[in-house]
Amino acid sequence: MTQSRRYTESSSKTEFFNERRGAPGDVHFHPDAPPPKITLLDYNASGVEQIDIHQPEDCIPYLDSESISWVDVGGLGGEEIWQRLKQVFNLHPLALEDIIHAPQRPKMEEYEDQIVVIARMVSLKQDGKSLMTEQISLVVGENYLLSVQEEPDYDCLEFVRERLQSSRSQLRKSSVDYLLYSLIDAIIDGFFPILEMYGELIEDLEAEVVTSPSPQTLERIYQIKRELLELRRAIWPQRDAINALIRDSSDLISHDVRLYLRDCYDHAVQVLDIVETYRELASSLTDIYLSSVSNRMNEVMKTLTIISSIFIPLTFIAGIYGMNFNTEESPLNMPELNWYWGYTATIGVMVIIAVGMIIFFWRRGWFKSFAAVRSNEQTSVKRRRD
Amino acid sequence: MTQSRRYTESSSKTEFFNERRGAPGDVHFHPDAPPPKITLLDYNASGVEQIDIHQPEDCIPYLDSESISWVDVGGLGGEEIWQRLKQVFNLHPLALEDIIHAPQRPKMEEYEDQIVVIARMVSLKQDGKSLMTEQISLVVGENYLLSVQEEPDYDCLEFVRERLQSSRSQLRKSSVDYLLYSLIDAIIDGFFPILEMYGELIEDLEAEVVTSPSPQTLERIYQIKRELLELRRAIWPQRDAINALIRDSSDLISHDVRLYLRDCYDHAVQVLDIVETYRELASSLTDIYLSSVSNRMNEVMKTLTIISSIFIPLTFIAGIYGMNFNTEESPLNMPELNWYWGYTATIGVMVIIAVGMIIFFWRRGWFKSFAAVRSNEQTSVKRRRD
Amino acid sequence: MTQSRRYTESSSKTEFFNERRGAPGDVHFHPDAPPPKITLLDYNASGVEQIDIHQPEDCIPYLDSESISWVDVGGLGGEEIWQRLKQVFNLHPLALEDIIHAPQRPKMEEYEDQIVVIARMVSLKQDGKSLMTEQISLVVGENYLLSVQEEPDYDCLEFVRERLQSSRSQLRKSSVDYLLYSLIDAIIDGFFPILEMYGELIEDLEAEVVTSPSPQTLERIYQIKRELLELRRAIWPQRDAINALIRDSSDLISHDVRLYLRDCYDHAVQVLDIVETYRELASSLTDIYLSSVSNRMNEVMKTLTIISSIFIPLTFIAGIYGMNFNTEESPLNMPELNWYWGYTATIGVMVIIAVGMIIFFWRRGWFKSFAAVRSNEQTSVKRRRD
Amino acid sequence: MTQSRRYTESSSKTEFFNERRGAPGDVHFHPDAPPPKITLLDYNASGVEQIDIHQPEDCIPYLDSESISWVDVGGLGGEEIWQRLKQVFNLHPLALEDIIHAPQRPKMEEYEDQIVVIARMVSLKQDGKSLMTEQISLVVGENYLLSVQEEPDYDCLEFVRERLQSSRSQLRKSSVDYLLYSLIDAIIDGFFPILEMYGELIEDLEAEVVTSPSPQTLERIYQIKRELLELRRAIWPQRDAINALIRDSSDLISHDVRLYLRDCYDHAVQVLDIVETYRELASSLTDIYLSSVSNRMNEVMKTLTIISSIFIPLTFIAGIYGMNFNTEESPLNMPELNWYWGYTATIGVMVIIAVGMIIFFWRRGWFKSFAAVRSNEQTSVKRRRD
Amino acid sequence: MTQSRRYTESSSKTEFFNERRGAPGDVHFHPDAPPPKITLLDYNASGVEQIDIHQPEDCIPYLDSESISWVDVGGLGGEEIWQRLKQVFNLHPLALEDIIHAPQRPKMEEYEDQIVVIARMVSLKQDGKSLMTEQISLVVGENYLLSVQEEPDYDCLEFVRERLQSSRSQLRKSSVDYLLYSLIDAIIDGFFPILEMYGELIEDLEAEVVTSPSPQTLERIYQIKRELLELRRAIWPQRDAINALIRDSSDLISHDVRLYLRDCYDHAVQVLDIVETYRELASSLTDIYLSSVSNRMNEVMKTLTIISSIFIPLTFIAGIYGMNFNTEESPLNMPELNWYWGYTATIGVMVIIAVGMIIFFWRRGWFKSFAAVRSNEQTSVKRRRD
Repeated sequence: MTQSRRYTESSSKTEFFNERRGAPGDVHFHPDAPPPKITLLDYNASGVEQIDIHQPEDCIPYLDSESISWVDVGGLGGEEIWQRLKQVFNLHPLALEDIIHAPQRPKMEEYEDQIVVIARMVSLKQDGKSLMTEQISLVVGENYLLSVQEEPDYDCLEFVRERLQSSRSQLRKSSVDYLLYSLIDAIIDGFFPILEMYGELIEDLEAEVVTSPSPQTLERIYQIKRELLELRRAIWPQRDAINALIRDSSDLISHDVRLYLRDCYDHAVQVLDIVETYRELASSLTDIYLSSVSNRMNEVMKTLTIISSIFIPLTFIAGIYGMNFNTEESPLNMPELNWYWGYTATIGVMVIIAVGMIIFFWRRGWFKSFAAVRSNEQTSVKRRRD
Repeated sequence: MTQSRRYTESSSKTEFFNERRGAPGDVHFHPDAPPPKITLLDYNASGVEQIDIHQPEDCIPYLDSESISWVDVGGLGGEEIWQRLKQVFNLHPLALEDIIHAPQRPKMEEYEDQIVVIARMVSLKQDGKSLMTEQISLVVGENYLLSVQEEPDYDCLEFVRERLQSSRSQLRKSSVDYLLYSLIDAIIDGFFPILEMYGELIEDLEAEVVTSPSPQTLERIYQIKRELLELRRAIWPQRDAINALIRDSSDLISHDVRLYLRDCYDHAVQVLDIVETYRELASSLTDIYLSSVSNRMNEVMKTLTIISSIFIPLTFIAGIYGMNFNTEESPLNMPELNWYWGYTATIGVMVIIAVGMIIFFWRRGWFKSFAAVRSNEQTSVKRRRD
Repeated sequence: MTQSRRYTESSSKTEFFNERRGAPGDVHFHPDAPPPKITLLDYNASGVEQIDIHQPEDCIPYLDSESISWVDVGGLGGEEIWQRLKQVFNLHPLALEDIIHAPQRPKMEEYEDQIVVIARMVSLKQDGKSLMTEQISLVVGENYLLSVQEEPDYDCLEFVRERLQSSRSQLRKSSVDYLLYSLIDAIIDGFFPILEMYGELIEDLEAEVVTSPSPQTLERIYQIKRELLELRRAIWPQRDAINALIRDSSDLISHDVRLYLRDCYDHAVQVLDIVETYRELASSLTDIYLSSVSNRMNEVMKTLTIISSIFIPLTFIAGIYGMNFNTEESPLNMPELNWYWGYTATIGVMVIIAVGMIIFFWRRGWFKSFAAVRSNEQTSVKRRRD
Repeated sequence: MTQSRRYTESSSKTEFFNERRGAPGDVHFHPDAPPPKITLLDYNASGVEQIDIHQPEDCIPYLDSESISWVDVGGLGGEEIWQRLKQVFNLHPLALEDIIHAPQRPKMEEYEDQIVVIARMVSLKQDGKSLMTEQISLVVGENYLLSVQEEPDYDCLEFVRERLQSSRSQLRKSSVDYLLYSLIDAIIDGFFPILEMYGELIEDLEAEVVTSPSPQTLERIYQIKRELLELRRAIWPQRDAINALIRDSSDLISHDVRLYLRDCYDHAVQVLDIVETYRELASSLTDIYLSSVSNRMNEVMKTLTIISSIFIPLTFIAGIYGMNFNTEESPLNMPELNWYWGYTATIGVMVIIAVGMIIFFWRRGWFKSFAAVRSNEQTSVKRRRD
Repeated sequence: MTQSRRYTESSSKTEFFNERRGAPGDVHFHPDAPPPKITLLDYNASGVEQIDIHQPEDCIPYLDSESISWVDVGGLGGEEIWQRLKQVFNLHPLALEDIIHAPQRPKMEEYEDQIVVIARMVSLKQDGKSLMTEQISLVVGENYLLSVQEEPDYDCLEFVRERLQSSRSQLRKSSVDYLLYSLIDAIIDGFFPILEMYGELIEDLEAEVVTSPSPQTLERIYQIKRELLELRRAIWPQRDAINALIRDSSDLISHDVRLYLRDCYDHAVQVLDIVETYRELASSLTDIYLSSVSNRMNEVMKTLTIISSIFIPLTFIAGIYGMNFNTEESPLNMPELNWYWGYTATIGVMVIIAVGMIIFFWRRGWFKSFAAVRSNEQTSVKRRRD
């Protein structure tokens, strides 16, 4: 299962993280991670230029220009490159540590002339079924924004890049804080398709838990609970970080963009609301599962009880007339055996007992439940088709 | 089931919402939604005028007049109309985005000369059994109020319109903030009949869970829990939005209307209280359901145990005298078979055992429970009649 | 059951409340409710006078005098009388709405020259077993206090009236804020006997849940949970209202009385603490109930298993020697049947198996549990006698 | 049981409390409670004097002197003595009410020249197994401290008295606020042995719940939960009261003693932490108990199933050859009965079926669980010995 | 088990703590604990010196020098040494009490010219499976830091000492507040390997709970819950203490180091988040365990029901033809016995009934579940191998 592999990945990362136990401010790099891919997008209202950067120092002229430079770095390996990036962007040691030592808790930190936002991006894996989270760090200075992602391959920022190409977009006309807002907005919006997937998973489980509950059902509920906990841990501090950005006193963020960030904040709260709702639904599903199991056991017990209760007394009667008392020694010894109607009467008594039992169980409503279970299964199936 | 269809609707909406991934501030319209229906109500103390608006620009003279104009827009389609409405009402791009991209989290936003309130209206569907929620956005400026609803057909504001017709009503004599208050009050009051319905549903389930618990009962409890979660998600931020209105520094809302809004706030808190109470009751019902299932299984087991325990020993005795030991080979081989009282004594022993067992079970109170269950069912039925 | 009738009452009230959907500030009266009973108590340090008021305007001279006037109004019907009361006491429309549209959430509102406190009074019904709550509204102005109760018949304020008769009581010597405090104190103190009743109910259920758990037990626990939720909903906002009174800047309440209200606040918190404690105990009782049911099922299962396990193997042995193999055709065909000790040995083997089984179950401790259950029942009974 | 007697005591007290329904500020005394025992400890750096006080007025000279006077009053009866104490110490009516009307919620109240602390002292009863809580009120004025306890016999302040005897102790050299701190510290420290007892009880239950779960086990867990709730209700407001003392603006408490009280506050928080931890452990124990019961039922069911599944098919085979079809009428009628190897083959088939069943159950691991339960019991026993 | 021994240790410590009941500010030492080991590390940018201290007074020259002195004390015994340490470091009595009377709640206290941080260090025992917590106290003054550990043998500070040896490390160049930060950082980082271990334990239990649930599984879940509660109790106040350090007004901590402490605070919050997540996962595992037990019982019941339901009716039929009605007395008395096809037809009916039963159970899906359980076990095993 891919899901558990992800956990293994992250725990091996933690091991690495723990082994270093570096000095605070000392940064420890994965020794075998490849060097990062660096892309620079320099734009202003009049045009956009995209450059693949191989030497970090190549960024300097763009950073010094008045146009806005978005430097996107993919991958956390390559110590030497990173030391040079640190020089070029004048990163604080703690900022660099937070960027490299993923996973960090999402947060917003303000340094002398930079704002650093650590965020968490979520996406679906290619199987469309399991959750992948990735750290993205945004460093904003005057006229530039440095974004760093754990994995260079995939991100949810493609859309922002596309909009930068369009000369009509507000992004082109605005300053760097608007770019920061656009990226954060894209990150938060990236949670919605994931939530939708969980919404559908929960709906599927609602049907499954009643129609065909199996131990795997509960495992799936547990899996969803676990991933929702992870989502919550990703979005909760992100919300606080956005709030900190809004209330921050820095000049880097204009009043107008704060208004936009407030909108972003609302979306983060909405994500959190939905995550909490889904968690409560998942908990309720556990209850339904447990009761489904109980109901099925009830049904099993009823089957056993009905059959046993009908046949055990009959078998007893048959047992009586199977006894070998000597009818010749005494007229009291099973004279029924020699009666003309003996066998017929015995069979009659048996039928009466059996019918009596069936009526007894019928009136207690035990047969109904079989029908109920079956019709229940049918309606469930039907509903799923709708 | 209508309920699940609603969910499907909303998720298809989300899909649309996700596919766009538009620039923040860019608004994306449902391509095939019909253009909105626009109605203008212009009133002051001396009179009311109701006009169907076809060109947004037709509103301008009314907005410029000193009388109060309430422009009600139903439906979120029709990009071109909306762009003109944006011009006419001078809407901020974010405000327009919030209005069109429903569902948004309820909130209050203050722009330069406008206050925007995003709220959520609840109503029962025509079947009277399932919940429908709809976004309503209120934009208040000087002397005008723009209200936008997702669905043009139904709303809970009819009552406000009626009162506007009456020249005696305070609404006619007051300024636009009082209209805003009246609408919010109507929205909050719209929650009460819904809550009443859930109150009745829970009372029904209280009876059902004891008398005739079936897997459907638990599904119904789950459904209620889910809808109460949705209600909570609708009312919680609404309460905060009203509170923000009360504490807001804007000149648009007078001190008197703030007093009225405080009343509204209290009602929102009351709704929230009741929702929480119902959620706790629904959780307790789950416990009762599970115990009902256990009790029924207990009853099944007792039936089986009583019948088995009585007849298994008797069958064993019958089995003994069904053995074919040769009584002629040895005087020790089942001499009972040839005794005069043999059969009678055997039957006697069987009766004693059976009666002993019954007394044993009687004293353990196992028969009582059958009576209990039955009387319980009767009282439950009785209570429902009362 | 009286309990459910109360719910029905309140929901019919809500229906009425919802149908009106009046303008905010417009007050809607129950058309067939009787007009209110009005009693005026005018007192100062030197004397007390009690007058039955039939025309609201009759109050005016008393209100104008320097002595303190307590006008107690019982019942919310009679629109015409109420409109005149509104004139006489110069009530704010919202205050009147809160008073008449019971149930409101308890709160404290400050108007120009009045403080309005909406509170909730609890009492036991005459059967001494079910909870009754009633709204009481207190309007305090200079030298007068207007109290309005839903039901004119019963209240917990009798004691305050008695004390007013005593010329030595501090009440007579103090100003109107002390009367307000005395009434609030009486309302809060009214919760304690109710809590005591729930404490006793929970103690009874503690015994019942172990000795004789029945489905009714759980229903009773549920009922208690429901009523405790209602109590919590009544006392929580009341606590906040008292706190608002303490912190309020109004001149109507002196510093000394604020000190007394702090005491009152502590009592409200104490009530809340006890309610929460009882709710947690009730939840724990549900666990015990479920485990009692499981234990009883366990006992049933053990009975069945012991009896079945002993007799089924014996019956099998008897069955073997009931087979009709022809002993004459072959010396291998059941020669035991013709042995001298055949029958005796068979019975011996059966006894050995039975005793072995009993020892096996004895060592597993299955018989002990029967004793445990019985002794448990006895100690429970004993404890209740103590 | 002593525990339940305590509850009865407290509820009879509440009855008394409720019956009075006195005027606020009026104090109602238990009519038959004995008059209080009063002890005065007058000390300064140079010496200590202990006096049994019989007339409250005898305290006056000591209160007027510069040395510090600690007046300890045991018992809440004796109205006349208390009225005189009120005069001597100039107690505020509300303060006296709080002192006498125990149980009050722990709190700190500041009056004109006095600070009143209402606290709750816990101790173990002589049986060392049940919890006893008692109200202690501390009134601090200039140079004196009045402490009032519900029960004169036992307290946890003995240690403070001992230290007062030692001329080297800081207590003797400090002013009255340090005495106040010492008493509060002793009260908070009194919670730790109680917590330790609960820690041990929970450890005992951890073993019991696995080895020998009985209905009594759950009752014990419930009892612990109930008493922990009571402890929490005692310590929570106490923490707030200490915090209020620290932040209080009164001159009676010096800056140095505030530092000491902060330490005390930390201890109160620690007590609260431990209480919460124990409550969560007790909840988890309930889960383990329920699962133990399920496991035992599982074991019972397996025993029944194994025995039934082996013998029922065999009994059926025996039943077949017990049929009386006439072998002479038809060669198809049970020719096996006359075969030479008939009986032997039948027994052989039976053995094969029995062995097959045993292997089937063995491979499903049903026999293992018996061993598991036994070894589990042994390890549990072992662990307890360690 | 080592785990329970730890508890015993800590409770014996508490006993000691309780027996003393010393004067506040009086410190009570374990009489038989060995005297502490004292090590002094004196460093500045140019060099490091490590000295084993035997007489506390030997520290004085180092403390007076301008270089930074880190005095590390291991062990809490040795009253006389401690009294001298108190003199040398000029410790406040409360600070000394907090240091010696471990366990204290983690906290930060500011004294005149010192900051005292009480923290809790966690580590794994040598068996790598159980948690060990230890108090560490940090006293910071100008140019010196005194650290005190309960156990001299092991700590997680080794890494800080190593870095002090490196002349390039920032630690050497910074002032004492940076050392304080480094130590706190090391303490917080020490939580991560522990959390990783719990993460792995939970993953193991996820597999175990489905494949082979046993009573020990639940005990292990309980153990984890208990230890996570302990971790939470350790980290929660630590987080607050770090926050207090950040907001503290003391000059001892520079603005730069506050920035570093903010990073530390984020890590503490991250630890807390993970602990909470694990606690929720552990709770969900309990649900899965309970449902696994139910599923297994279900399987047992189905086995019993299938076998009983098939053979009980067959045995009844066999019983009928084992009856001894005299076929000669009446043509109605079991004429089947003499029919030519009698036996064959009876066997045929039996086969039809058996097959019918099997088909009935097959269609209800009862056989599938056996397969499901088996395949489930196989996938679980497989997953563990991956």
